[in-house]
Parts: sequence; C-alpha cells; structure tokens
Amino acid sequence: MSDLETTSADTTTALKMPGTPGFAAPAAIINPKQDIAALDDLERHLYAHRYAMSGIDCYMGSIDPAASSADSGEALAILGQENHELICSDATGAMLERLSAHGEVLSATQRAQVRVLMRDRASMVNVPSEEQADFARLTSESFAVWNRAKLANDWASFAPHLDRIVAAMRSMANHMDPAKDVYDVWLDQFEQGTDRSFYDAFFAQVKEVVVPLLADVAKSRRQPPRNLFAGHFDDRRQWDLASDIMDLEGLRRDALFVTKTEHPYSGGLTSNYVIVAGHVHEDDVLSNVYSMLHEGGHALYEQGVNPAFNYTSLAGGTSSGMHEAQSRFFENYVGRSEEFAPHLLALLKKHFPGQLGRVTSRQLYQVVNRAEGSLVRTEADELTYPLHIIVRYEIEQLLLSGEAVASDVPYLWAKKYKDYLGVQVPDDTRGALQDVHWSQGSLGYFPTYALGNAYGAQLRAAMMRSGMDYAGLLAAGNLAPIREWLRTNVWQFGRAKDPEQIIADACGEPFSATYYTDYLTKKFSSIYGL
Amino acid sequence: MSDLETTSADTTTALKMPGTPGFAAPAAIINPKQDIAALDDLERHLYAHRYAMSGIDCYMGSIDPAASSADSGEALAILGQENHELICSDATGAMLERLSAHGEVLSATQRAQVRVLMRDRASMVNVPSEEQADFARLTSESFAVWNRAKLANDWASFAPHLDRIVAAMRSMANHMDPAKDVYDVWLDQFEQGTDRSFYDAFFAQVKEVVVPLLADVAKSRRQPPRNLFAGHFDDRRQWDLASDIMDLEGLRRDALFVTKTEHPYSGGLTSNYVIVAGHVHEDDVLSNVYSMLHEGGHALYEQGVNPAFNYTSLAGGTSSGMHEAQSRFFENYVGRSEEFAPHLLALLKKHFPGQLGRVTSRQLYQVVNRAEGSLVRTEADELTYPLHIIVRYEIEQLLLSGEAVASDVPYLWAKKYKDYLGVQVPDDTRGALQDVHWSQGSLGYFPTYALGNAYGAQLRAAMMRSGMDYAGLLAAGNLAPIREWLRTNVWQFGRAKDPEQIIADACGEPFSATYYTDYLTKKFSSIYGL
Repeated sequence: MSDLETTSADTTTALKMPGTPGFAAPAAIINPKQDIAALDDLERHLYAHRYAMSGIDCYMGSIDPAASSADSGEALAILGQENHELICSDATGAMLERLSAHGEVLSATQRAQVRVLMRDRASMVNVPSEEQADFARLTSESFAVWNRAKLANDWASFAPHLDRIVAAMRSMANHMDPAKDVYDVWLDQFEQGTDRSFYDAFFAQVKEVVVPLLADVAKSRRQPPRNLFAGHFDDRRQWDLASDIMDLEGLRRDALFVTKTEHPYSGGLTSNYVIVAGHVHEDDVLSNVYSMLHEGGHALYEQGVNPAFNYTSLAGGTSSGMHEAQSRFFENYVGRSEEFAPHLLALLKKHFPGQLGRVTSRQLYQVVNRAEGSLVRTEADELTYPLHIIVRYEIEQLLLSGEAVASDVPYLWAKKYKDYLGVQVPDDTRGALQDVHWSQGSLGYFPTYALGNAYGAQLRAAMMRSGMDYAGLLAAGNLAPIREWLRTNVWQFGRAKDPEQIIADACGEPFSATYYTDYLTKKFSSIYGL
Repeated sequence: MSDLETTSADTTTALKMPGTPGFAAPAAIINPKQDIAALDDLERHLYAHRYAMSGIDCYMGSIDPAASSADSGEALAILGQENHELICSDATGAMLERLSAHGEVLSATQRAQVRVLMRDRASMVNVPSEEQADFARLTSESFAVWNRAKLANDWASFAPHLDRIVAAMRSMANHMDPAKDVYDVWLDQFEQGTDRSFYDAFFAQVKEVVVPLLADVAKSRRQPPRNLFAGHFDDRRQWDLASDIMDLEGLRRDALFVTKTEHPYSGGLTSNYVIVAGHVHEDDVLSNVYSMLHEGGHALYEQGVNPAFNYTSLAGGTSSGMHEAQSRFFENYVGRSEEFAPHLLALLKKHFPGQLGRVTSRQLYQVVNRAEGSLVRTEADELTYPLHIIVRYEIEQLLLSGEAVASDVPYLWAKKYKDYLGVQVPDDTRGALQDVHWSQGSLGYFPTYALGNAYGAQLRAAMMRSGMDYAGLLAAGNLAPIREWLRTNVWQFGRAKDPEQIIADACGEPFSATYYTDYLTKKFSSIYGL
C-alpha cells in the first residue's frame, strides 16, 4: 500500500491463487468454443479473488482492527495460493497456449486477456505456491511491525523483517528467472520492460539537470518563505477540505470510499469501487491538499478503466509507473502549477478563512514550489523529489545484491540524504522507516515514482501539442478536458496496453525523459530567477 | 444484514463456494492421516472464503460506494459457488463420511468440525451451485433495491424482487428436502431443530401472556411520559456516546470496526475482527443507545468464540436465535433494567448535559419500558416486541406457501398491525419496508428474535441460580462477570454446540419459554402497578 497501488495491476498482488476451472485439455488442437469458455470461467474466478484480495489489502491499512492483522494476512495468503493454482495449472497453461496460437478466433479484448494472463502466469509458474503464500504472510506481518516501528522510531524491530523480505524476494526472483539479476526481475515486475540499465540511464539524465539546478536554487535570493501556512488546522475541517478537493479533481463520488489511515494510499476493487485513504496532520494543511490530489489521481485512473474490463485480467492500471504518472500529474502538473493555485487557495480559504484569509495564490504557488533538501519523500518539492527516489533505488540494489543488510540501512540512508539532499537525518521515523513499501515486499517500486513524473511530463506535452489550452483550463479550474484526454489516451485501456505502448500511442513517439527535465529547468529557473 | 448476523454461522451466507482440495478418495477404508490433512486443507480454503465473504457482506451495507453493488454481488456469488463446490464435491463427502464413522481417531474439535461440515453439506449438496449463485446475485441486487424503496416509500419497486426471492427460496427448499414444508426447511436453516409446530407452540405461549398483559397495561394510569428525551441530539456527540456505550458494554476495541449505515447491523470475520454498523437519528438519542447495546451484544458473542476456532467451520455464533439472545440480552436484560439505568443515564448526561441534565434514571427506566403498540420493530418495547415478530412469522408463511404474493403484503401488514398492535400503518417505510431481512432472502429469520429473547431469559435465570448477584452487578455497572458467564457457557463454543445443547448445558434443563413469559409478567406488572 502507501501511495502504492493495490489493485491486481500491481504485480506483487497479482502474484498469487484454489481450484481449477472445469475444462479438459487435449494437447495441441484448439476447440475455440471450449477454450474461450474456459478462459471466461478462469476470469470469473480470478475476478472474485481479485475483488476479495484487493479489498482485504486496502482495508488492512485503514479500517481493520489491530487484532485482525494475522487473520487478514492468512486469508490473503490462501486466496493468493488459490490464484496461483488457478493460473499456474497445466490446463490453464495449455488453454492459454492454444488461444495465443489462434489469435484470429479471438476478439481484441480476448487477445489482450490471453497476453496479460500469459505474462502473469510466466511470473508465477516457477514460484512454488507455498513460497508465494509464505511471502504474503510475511508481508502482512511486516506491515504491522513496520507500522509500530515507525511510530516508535525503532528500526531494530523492523530490520529482521526486512532481511526476511529481501531473502524471500531474492528466492522468488531466482525462481522467476534464474539467469537474470534479482533487482532486474523485480523492476520488470513493477514496470514491464525496465531494468537497472534503463533506470541508470534515466536517473543519470535526471541528475545531470537536477543537481546543478538545485545548486543554483540554493544560491538564489528568491527563496520563498516557509511558514505562511503554519498553524493549527482542525482535523474535521481538513476532512471537509479533502472532500472538496476530491470534487474539484473530478472523482466519481458514487464509486469512491474515502477513509483514514496512518500513511495515505489508494486502491481499486473495480472501476466502480475505488478507495482513497488519507491522513490529516493538524499542523500541516498543505500535506492534506497535495496527498489528496495525489491519491485522487490514482483513483481517477482506476475509475477511468473501461468498465467492461472489470471482470477480466485487464482491470486496473497497467503498471506502477503509469499509475504514479496519473497521481503525480494531478499533484504536480495540476496542483503545483501557478494557474491552478487560485482554485486550491479558494478551497483553503473557504475552510480556514480566519487563518488563511490574507494569503495570495502567488504565495501558495511559491511555498509549494520552494525547492530544498528535505527529509520526507511525500512532502518533497518537485525538483528534489527524484533525489529521494535515487537514495532508495541505490539502497534497494545493495540489499537485493547482498552488499548490505537491513541493519546497515540507517547509516546508508543518513549518508545518502546528506550527500544528495544536504540534510541531517534526525531519526528513522523521518528516515528509513518513513515509507511503507519495503514492509510490503515492494523493493523495485520506488523508481516508478520518478518514471511516473517523466511519463506525466511527456503526456502533458502531448496534450498541449494536441491543441489543448492547458494553462487556460487550469486557470479556469476546468479539469474535465484534461481528464477526458487522459481517459481516452491512458485510463480506459487498463492493462490491455503496456506503458510503452501507451506512451507511444498517446505521444506519437517513444518514451523520453527530456520533457521532464525541460519542465523542471523551465519551472525552477523561472521561480528562482535563474 | 440488519441486526442480522452476517458470519458464516448464518446459514444463508454459509450456503455458498471453486476448486477442490487435493485429496484422493477411496471409498470405505479410512486413512486417518490423509483424511485429517484433507479436512485441514478444506477448512483453510473455507476460512479464506468465509473471511472474504463475511467482509464483503458487511461492507456492502456500510462503507461500499453505491456504484459497486453489482460488483460485490458478483464476487459474493462466485466465492459462494466456489464454497459450494468445495463442500459438495464427492471427495469431500466421502472424506467426511469416513471421518464421521471413525470419530475415535479425532479430537473433540475435529469431531465437531466433521459434524457441522456434514450438516452444511447436507443443506447444500442438492441445490445446484448455479442456483445458489443466482440467489446470491438476486439478494445483493434486492438489497440495493430495498434500500432505495425504503427511502422512497415505494413498495411497488421492491415487490417483484420479493416475489423472485420467495420463488428462489421455495425452489431451494425443495432441493434441500422435497418432503418437508418450505417454511420448515428455512426455519431449521436459521435455527437448528425448529419448525412451524415448534414456533406455533412458542408463540401461543407468548401470546397467552402478552395479549392480556398489554390490555391491562393499556388500561393502567401509570403510563410513563414519552417526550422526556425529545429534542435534537448532535450527530457527532451521539457517535461519541455510542463509543462510550461500547466501552461500557465491554467490547474489545482492538477487535472492532465501527462504521455507519442506514440500518444497524453487526457481523464478524473472525473473533479478532467484528463489525458494528450503527445509525444515528438526530431526533432520537435513545434509538442510538439501544441499537448500540443490541449490536454490541452480537459483537461480544463473535469476539467471545474460542479463537482456536477462527480457521475452522466452528467459527461464529451457532444460530440466529442464540445470536439474538446475546444482542437482546444486552439491549434488554441489561439495558432496560432499572438497576443499569443510572449508568446509561450518566453517559447520556455526559454528552448532552444541557438537554438531559434533569432527567432521572427512574424516568429513563420508565420511558424505555413504556409498553404500547408501535410501528417499528427495532424501536419496540419488550412487551410488544414479540407481536411484531408474530406479524412477520405469519406473513412469511403466507408468502412461502403461495397463499399471498408480494403485492398483498402492505395490506396484510396494515391489517395485522391494527389487529395485534392497535396501530394504523401510515406508509410502507414504517411498514413492510422497515426491515432489511426479506431483501436478503432471510425469510425464517424473524422468529429467532423472539426465541432469542426467551433463550436470554432462561440464561439470565440460570446465571442467578448459579449464585450471581445479577441485580447487584448491574447496579454497580460491572458487566464483567456477566460477560464471563456468557463467554464460558455460550460464546466460546461457537458452532461446536447446537443451541439446544447450549441451553441444556448452561441451564441444566431443556429450553423453556416460561422464564421469558414470567419475566415479562413480573416486569410489566410492576411498572404498571397491575
């Protein structure tokens, strides 16, 4: 969980399944009717399991009572084992092979189902189902341990769990593809087609721009003030504000469950049932605004998938990176823009007229774009954000390669935060315990955040090229055409298109990080007068 | 749902399931190790399905967004079909037969598991799994339709669904036991061992006492005032009050999820995860107090089941009647007692000091025991309560026998409420649409409420005989010994004991309704000076 996506599109969740649908499996000859019926039957069962598991996964971090964590973990482990058996059975394998070889008898949707199911199967079939189930148990338990550890600033209590997670992820990756580097296996699980060499090149390009830019920013005299939004902001009013922000963002309220959690996240059971879990800090109203915009972006993606895909393996977002592209689109390309600032400020003033009556939208824009090294990823400005990701990317590699163990992490974390972000890490709560991801067995997820920023910048550029008056729409507070563009070009496809294909079709060119680096350069040069 | 119990112990839910655990099934020779392993494997899968299904069932009426109702219904239908296949497979049947014939190789718990599973299987095995699944779809849909119909006072929109539910229940009952009367089949499903002749005798005994008593009450001049608790009671403060009531009742908060709903209910996923869904009416603070005590009683039962049973078919309450015995115990035998009134009043005054500062606990006691014909079952006093049930019992018989159809119900309802309770039914919202049960396919459930009252009175008498200073404990606000007695004698056994057995063991005698009728006579004679 976390700002982590928890639907089936998230392959860590999808890596799981009892019982086999009733179909016979003669070896090579295709009986299309029978095989398509078997495919439909498989999808029905997978649907029910996905609905149940996505729900359990989402409720775990919010509504569930504390005493139930082992029970929910056990249910998830067993349902995951059932999924594993459904997908990995020889009969399923033979059916998928036959259908794949005779694509001409299938609709486009069925062809996509077969393709996605074959990939899901390939990533699971060599992992023993018991090992998969044990991993589900381990991560549920670790999530609860992490929660307590974070509150108590107690890395030592979490470290043994992280070591076990790393060992389990190493073993699973070796089952999945023994010839491949462990981290490469997991990077590809979260984002199809990526590996270390892809991210190394991507992060090198980002660093090349961000590091000198940040140095110039630090020297600039135009640093915006920090504390215009300081104060105490009543919890209940902040929830009312959060509700207004979701309406402003354009979420379908009849397909949304909003709840409270320690660490915000979102997830989807179907396009008709999306969950946003938020957290209010009474001393930080802007955190609420931007985390709601972020989670709302994830939720818009889930709500925007073609509803016909709900009962198929094409449901949900296509990858972690594409999901983060949507969330960070609304958080940053909308929410941290100068044009949209008046609309956010109007809501802030509506709920806190006494406290914020005098703040201007120019000031809001400046405050939320104040670029400087900081401790917490989810509160970082756009410019330093990728540096937070690079810290995690490097540490994950050290853990999975065995060059470091969990007890080394606080030291590594402190050193890298000092080196890259220039800050002193005062405790693990604001250090290596700040994020939920590792406790969930999601090593390899973080890089997709930075990649999502870059996808988003490229999508934004394509929108503008298509003739959309992007700045004008933001200034008018009219997000409908932007949502419609994203729905048409990204959301509706669910898992039927890979991220690469989505970018290529939507933008008319392959992925390029240059839109992202250009955007950062232009924006921060302008703000800081460079 | 409703004050309906939604765990697997509720046989309508349990009537549902893919995939078969992996065990071979030679016909008659027992291989204990292999069969016990197969039993464990079956229970593991059933556990995961029960956890998922109880959750979905509970969330449907509270947190789920409106647009998801078809999706959750479909997931429930498929998971139910999977359960059906798991339990009804020939291999499961043979395994259970062998283990049942060789009870000497089993622990007491395993023997109970086999017994309960065989009964569950017998009630499902002749019902086609597709019919079961269609029933699940129908009831999910009907639940949503009922919800809207109740708000809109629109019986006509709900009637076709009720007719379909009745037809489906008739067909299923004929599959279950073609030789038996349809209503008898369903009465036995909700309460093992009951049928029309049992309830006819029970209700005759109750009527014999209640009808003349109520006539005397109506003539009495001691009628307590109605409007001491009238006024507007802020929603938020009422939720704080509800929270205090749950603490006073002694619920384990770390195993409880409290949420909001239109029509209060409770349910349990495991003993570590119990849900109470409440509803606050700003014009009626007492409704909140007593519905919380009621749902809290259900929740205490679920929390009190032996935790070792969580992952077995022995989890949850043993029957609807025994569940209602617990809920109505805390609502009435605790909550509407003179001794406990000061403790409830203290909480009421804590949250509404301005409005209720002058009310005395004697007045509270009188107001909540004002006996008179009324429209709404869940708001009824103890004396008239069983008459509300008898109306439903009689109409259910007419529907299932085909002597009446859904469109006849408003007329029948109005006539019987006039005859038995002396009130004019002004609309269907406060008439035949007031309760959720029929929309859920729970015809046969209502009689268990009245039976639960009688179980409760007998258990209360047994407590006192055991030497407990019942009145003294209530006066001291100390419910712990009462909970402990119920935990020891009722709750811990889950489904391992049938209700008949629980009463016999706890009370040292078979079930008798006389404790209930005596209690009513004594209590209301005293209040009304008869």
